[in-house]
Amino acid sequence: MEHVYVSDIAKYEGQEVILKGWLYNKRSSGKLHFLQLRDGTGIIQCVVFKGDVPEEIFNLADKITQESSIIIQGVVRADKRSPIGYEIGVKGLKVVQMAEDYPITPKEHGVAFLMEHRHLWLRSTRQHAILRIRSEIIKACRSYLDDNGFILIDAPIFTPAACEGTTTLFETDYFGEKAYLTQSGQLYMEAAAMAFGRVYCFGPTFRAEKSKTRRHLTEFWMVEPEMAYYDLNDDMDLAESLLEHIVKQVLKNKRRELETLERDISALEKIEKPFPRITYTEAIEILNKKGMTMTWGDDFGGDEETVLSKEFEKPVLVHRYPLQCKAFYMKADPQDPRLALCVDVLAPEGYGEIIGGGQREDDLKTLEQKIREHNLPMEAFKWYLDLRRYGSVPHAGFGLGIERTVAWICGLHHVRETIPFPRLMERITP
Amino acid sequence: MEHVYVSDIAKYEGQEVILKGWLYNKRSSGKLHFLQLRDGTGIIQCVVFKGDVPEEIFNLADKITQESSIIIQGVVRADKRSPIGYEIGVKGLKVVQMAEDYPITPKEHGVAFLMEHRHLWLRSTRQHAILRIRSEIIKACRSYLDDNGFILIDAPIFTPAACEGTTTLFETDYFGEKAYLTQSGQLYMEAAAMAFGRVYCFGPTFRAEKSKTRRHLTEFWMVEPEMAYYDLNDDMDLAESLLEHIVKQVLKNKRRELETLERDISALEKIEKPFPRITYTEAIEILNKKGMTMTWGDDFGGDEETVLSKEFEKPVLVHRYPLQCKAFYMKADPQDPRLALCVDVLAPEGYGEIIGGGQREDDLKTLEQKIREHNLPMEAFKWYLDLRRYGSVPHAGFGLGIERTVAWICGLHHVRETIPFPRLMERITP
Repeated sequence: MEHVYVSDIAKYEGQEVILKGWLYNKRSSGKLHFLQLRDGTGIIQCVVFKGDVPEEIFNLADKITQESSIIIQGVVRADKRSPIGYEIGVKGLKVVQMAEDYPITPKEHGVAFLMEHRHLWLRSTRQHAILRIRSEIIKACRSYLDDNGFILIDAPIFTPAACEGTTTLFETDYFGEKAYLTQSGQLYMEAAAMAFGRVYCFGPTFRAEKSKTRRHLTEFWMVEPEMAYYDLNDDMDLAESLLEHIVKQVLKNKRRELETLERDISALEKIEKPFPRITYTEAIEILNKKGMTMTWGDDFGGDEETVLSKEFEKPVLVHRYPLQCKAFYMKADPQDPRLALCVDVLAPEGYGEIIGGGQREDDLKTLEQKIREHNLPMEAFKWYLDLRRYGSVPHAGFGLGIERTVAWICGLHHVRETIPFPRLMERITP
Repeated sequence: MEHVYVSDIAKYEGQEVILKGWLYNKRSSGKLHFLQLRDGTGIIQCVVFKGDVPEEIFNLADKITQESSIIIQGVVRADKRSPIGYEIGVKGLKVVQMAEDYPITPKEHGVAFLMEHRHLWLRSTRQHAILRIRSEIIKACRSYLDDNGFILIDAPIFTPAACEGTTTLFETDYFGEKAYLTQSGQLYMEAAAMAFGRVYCFGPTFRAEKSKTRRHLTEFWMVEPEMAYYDLNDDMDLAESLLEHIVKQVLKNKRRELETLERDISALEKIEKPFPRITYTEAIEILNKKGMTMTWGDDFGGDEETVLSKEFEKPVLVHRYPLQCKAFYMKADPQDPRLALCVDVLAPEGYGEIIGGGQREDDLKTLEQKIREHNLPMEAFKWYLDLRRYGSVPHAGFGLGIERTVAWICGLHHVRETIPFPRLMERITP
């Protein structure tokens, strides 16, 4: 007899099959036990009727504990009351392992307790929905770029030097030398873009920030496209198209999961190009109108991002920040050299920054000057400067933070549930 | 006028287009300059005929140096002598930046020099072919698993404890505590498999091994599937199907790149299921027949793998190694408890191990005993033992090393060219 998965159950209507999984929940009523079996692909109700099975099977069904591993043999029956349209009429039941008292019960648990039991918490319906959406978002990023002429070029994790100071870097001993864990693959993607035209990397990045906000993880994933012969406008067009594609794919393939999370789906359905684009200067004006006291030149923190992103129903592209708040590799706006040709994208509904990027300085002399002004070690950037020596071109790129994007699309307050095993300032287990 | 890419050029036959790229090579003959323009998607010959362009353009074409960034305007013409079937009749030419003397010339360079100039070396045809094949292999791994009921569950990079001793681990200070960089996502994937049934992670892993062999990198990528209710045979079936799929996708989509590398394509065309499966004991017999002096119980090193893998035209699955050589989580063979239910897959043509995996110990008491025997800290494995306490099931998985797979499929002697920015014991730059 065939071992089938809950997600494929419709193909087996009327047939006797084997299901292998775990007991998610159970209720009993006289001559019936209703076993909710979960097998990772879905949950199905398995009905044990006293008249259908030997007495020892019926009694076993009564004794099975939550999360025990079970193998069920039975007939697939259409059932209109079932959320998935089918249930199983049980003929046989085997317990693979009877679980001890499972620590996560249907009652409410505190976040600290759940985080400590993340290896088990992953089994809950809500975590399933979030992580399936995460997986869909990652797939959407890759498919969009793969289908639009980009090539995946993995950036290294170990880097010899710090681009922007070492205070937020994790350091390791590398056979007697110091090495740092990457904060961004950007500089490497610039080299790759000069070789392949349009490239992206997609991997974990690390920040040793002493931040305990709802938007910070020490280890998080980023997708970073970088494109030769792109200017800031091309860069913004790509960011917009990529985000639209991601949201559409989730709406198309993970609607049930959004419903499980009680996400306001209508808010996601509004995410269509074009997105609003405002300058930093306009953003400052909006913030001041909202009662915040911002001076031109101030950088935005979490609070400002929250306020700004609540102003729009779609992601908003905020471009041309003051050059002084930005990294050394940002290109100055030829129209107004106080400004950088950069863009941040803030997700709506208060979610804030999910993308940061812009056009890179492509002139050798200007870049050398910037490295000196930022007191960075010229020698460490020798290879990076080579990119301006040998066929420099205008180019641009950005980084999209996966966990913040998952938080926004799922409608989660905190990023800690957006990644399977979150790493926070005070958490590195399990 | 439209900016088009070389890879799309066939769509524009007879039209005037703009190409943006770099000068890969050039030759001149009287009234003609033949400029090889590369734009990352391909290389196309652009013909500058003295009679077609103003004199300053013709003279500029004469002066352009290798790797200068150029924008060419011209007409797409079919040309049978061209490897891509088309060339450009140049009407306009602009130099974006005139490159200084490019360090990588058509003459031979030493490996150390090329590695030091990796950021530029990436621009060569050979590196393009390798990295395009790498990208195809990664895509094939993901598409195979995504299309076969697996869900991507990213494993953490920071881990609190060492599974198998700390000597080959990179360590970092994590806000006052010690943390280690992951060597494998396996233990986390076991937790995820109990939640989602069939899962995989795909990310960088790290080994601080003092090895300078052609098979070792300190930072390398692995795809690691893990499946609940799978035994060793199911695991071997999956490994076989995944490898077959990867090779077929490369043959289908990257044949030209294989030709560029002068890869023996017929060797890859033989990679079809079923693959040979031999026991460790049989492998020992083969090695001894080949003149090596192996005693039952010895582990295989690089030399043994090379010899074994030359014996077969397809990847060979070597299963059931002595339990004593293997990690604590390996399940003992109930038929012969001296053996582990594990498998290594060795790529043919001398390439050696590309996959390691097997069935995991799923009994709580046995696993606790193994942790004690291996002198590992029980407390660190509390969460891992929970997986045997709450619904334990037979399960199995494996890790496929991307760089070794790329080396095999591309036919490369050393893994250093299989990753964009290789990290070796003595190299962490650029």
